[in-house]
Amino acid sequence: MEILKDKAAVVGIGVHKFSKDSGITEMEMACLAIRSALDDAGLTPDSIDGFVEYGEECFDEVIICRSMGIGNLTFHGDVRWDGGAACSIVQRAAMAVASGVANNVVVVRSVNDSSLRRKKKTWGEIRPWESIEDDWYNPYGLITDSGRIGMTVRRYMHEYDISGDAFGWVSEVLRENGAKNPNSMFYENSVTYNDYLTSKTTVDPFRELDCSPAIDGAIAMIVTSAERAKHLKQQPVYIVTGAQSIVAGTQFKTSYTRSSMTDIPAIGNVGRRLLEQAGVSMKDIDVLQLEDEFAPLVPMQLEELGICERGEGVKFIEGGDRIRKEGELPINTSGGSIGEGNIHGMNHIAEAVRQLRGTSTAQVKDAELALVATGACGPASGLILRR
Amino acid sequence: MEILKDKAAVVGIGVHKFSKDSGITEMEMACLAIRSALDDAGLTPDSIDGFVEYGEECFDEVIICRSMGIGNLTFHGDVRWDGGAACSIVQRAAMAVASGVANNVVVVRSVNDSSLRRKKKTWGEIRPWESIEDDWYNPYGLITDSGRIGMTVRRYMHEYDISGDAFGWVSEVLRENGAKNPNSMFYENSVTYNDYLTSKTTVDPFRELDCSPAIDGAIAMIVTSAERAKHLKQQPVYIVTGAQSIVAGTQFKTSYTRSSMTDIPAIGNVGRRLLEQAGVSMKDIDVLQLEDEFAPLVPMQLEELGICERGEGVKFIEGGDRIRKEGELPINTSGGSIGEGNIHGMNHIAEAVRQLRGTSTAQVKDAELALVATGACGPASGLILRR
Repeated sequence: MEILKDKAAVVGIGVHKFSKDSGITEMEMACLAIRSALDDAGLTPDSIDGFVEYGEECFDEVIICRSMGIGNLTFHGDVRWDGGAACSIVQRAAMAVASGVANNVVVVRSVNDSSLRRKKKTWGEIRPWESIEDDWYNPYGLITDSGRIGMTVRRYMHEYDISGDAFGWVSEVLRENGAKNPNSMFYENSVTYNDYLTSKTTVDPFRELDCSPAIDGAIAMIVTSAERAKHLKQQPVYIVTGAQSIVAGTQFKTSYTRSSMTDIPAIGNVGRRLLEQAGVSMKDIDVLQLEDEFAPLVPMQLEELGICERGEGVKFIEGGDRIRKEGELPINTSGGSIGEGNIHGMNHIAEAVRQLRGTSTAQVKDAELALVATGACGPASGLILRR
Repeated sequence: MEILKDKAAVVGIGVHKFSKDSGITEMEMACLAIRSALDDAGLTPDSIDGFVEYGEECFDEVIICRSMGIGNLTFHGDVRWDGGAACSIVQRAAMAVASGVANNVVVVRSVNDSSLRRKKKTWGEIRPWESIEDDWYNPYGLITDSGRIGMTVRRYMHEYDISGDAFGWVSEVLRENGAKNPNSMFYENSVTYNDYLTSKTTVDPFRELDCSPAIDGAIAMIVTSAERAKHLKQQPVYIVTGAQSIVAGTQFKTSYTRSSMTDIPAIGNVGRRLLEQAGVSMKDIDVLQLEDEFAPLVPMQLEELGICERGEGVKFIEGGDRIRKEGELPINTSGGSIGEGNIHGMNHIAEAVRQLRGTSTAQVKDAELALVATGACGPASGLILRR
């Protein structure tokens, strides 16, 4: 993807307050988040000519545009697979800008996952195409993400002789970061490793503090060309490169039939492609934003990304110091999905942008390069962003 | 979109037999069409690393890849809006190839619209985001495409004092083309203008012969780089350029509140962008493939594309000679959706490719440039292809 390298930039971020009940529809929240992102960028709705969203969105680009005075789109589309869609849609926006198909592209994710307010259906209900997985797993009660990914994590613990206690450092550090972040569901509400140890089991092997909370909230961003970005309000954050991966034999969060149940090779593929395309190594990355629907995914991804050996991820996070903002590889500095609330990966990208602007509430000193990876147990996607 | 110009080519087409009842699922049909397209290109499943589909597809890229031995994808995504998605997904594939994100990309559309076999839900039923239109129109009985687009066509007839009889030439010519095409639902089954005149009214102002039949069938294509295309089995058909448009105030097939109810400006936008980006004029186009869910859309689009003045489209098609394969601007030479069966625009693109290969059953002599436009009364998309 060298053709896209540094051609596009994120120039606006808009966040609609994370909560247990937004009180409004996902569509209205999306509009408000887009308006915030436009304000942040110093742009008006009529400047937008591209729109990319998750396939699972409960609204569409036509309704949003009509509702908020966005005029004419020359580029639109979506990417499925929830968390895996997050970096994908930003990459797609960058491709549109780099190829001249659109000038200013909105990307958005809006969820009423907590209140389910005016959500006619959840994605699982509307997905008419997931029948194979559903026929294999639902009859046996394997119907939630925690159950499905729990199987993979339990096997990981077995293979590498890992105790569930080891994952508590993820929760401590991410909630510590979230506690400093006013956007977070857990602002001023940290937990300790000891709280983790006494946290009750939800779906084995997960404890309550392993899980990212279902929340209401929305995030929108504006992507434009590197050239135009220079003349806007914010310091541009350049999209160095993006990547997607679906590996052979994938099932969405239930890839038990591959040769290893514990590998998450889509993340490995994304990481390798990103670094190769960007022409950098993992040592050059100042801050990492990783999928954290469940805490154990963090050490598993550290292994997959080659940051440590197989089975060594939990040693890397032990005590939490390496992954704190002052550590050698700060992770999920806004709190991520566990410490901030689950906006399906978009919060990770927004935080990477804030880090590179220097405006994070857990700012990593002189952060220049950020790597984001989302969608750990299904189709995955990633981005490298640069100050 | 100059950056994409001629960088990618369509190198394989696969058609799964059009019928009233496929006897198999949409997913299985998609796999069979993809296999045909791969055979046509001389490629194997493991060469595929990109996949783009309609947002409305009742399967996903993960299931298809797992089912047919496609290994690792580095690019995937979809575009919504049915017919409007057709040229969009080919454009998207071209962008992926041109930017080096993927090498060989599958695009596909598979429908059991006639039999509804193992179709858990139709798109209208699963769309949870169409509530505004639904609240406004469904309670008044405006629940089908024919009802919704019928309103626009009735107004068009009123504004330009056009008799419904005028549209019969579209049906005659398209069914004539379809009658020569063994893929068509209407192979060896032409109709005459007089048959049209006695065809019964379905939803005013449409007669039965104005309407494209709901069928079962699938079409897949393979897009690769212009460079790789030279070494494959078929004569490459280059993707000169692509375009999408959603105009301000759009409602899907019910844009009655814009200043004119009879304009279909998204098609005009797409046409202008295509010609400008390709650096050609409409006079350079040898064959046209136009959205024809309903016959009147053909003259309406001729006006929108600047081929004739407002209200003059029906004069252009009168007698049918201008739009026949020997005429000055041959249209829908495979029969299009009316004369072949409705695969939501993908059949139009496949036919453009056949024309440029010189293998159409209604071959236009020395065809070099084809323009395709799909999605006339909602989000629209288009392509210019070149031999």
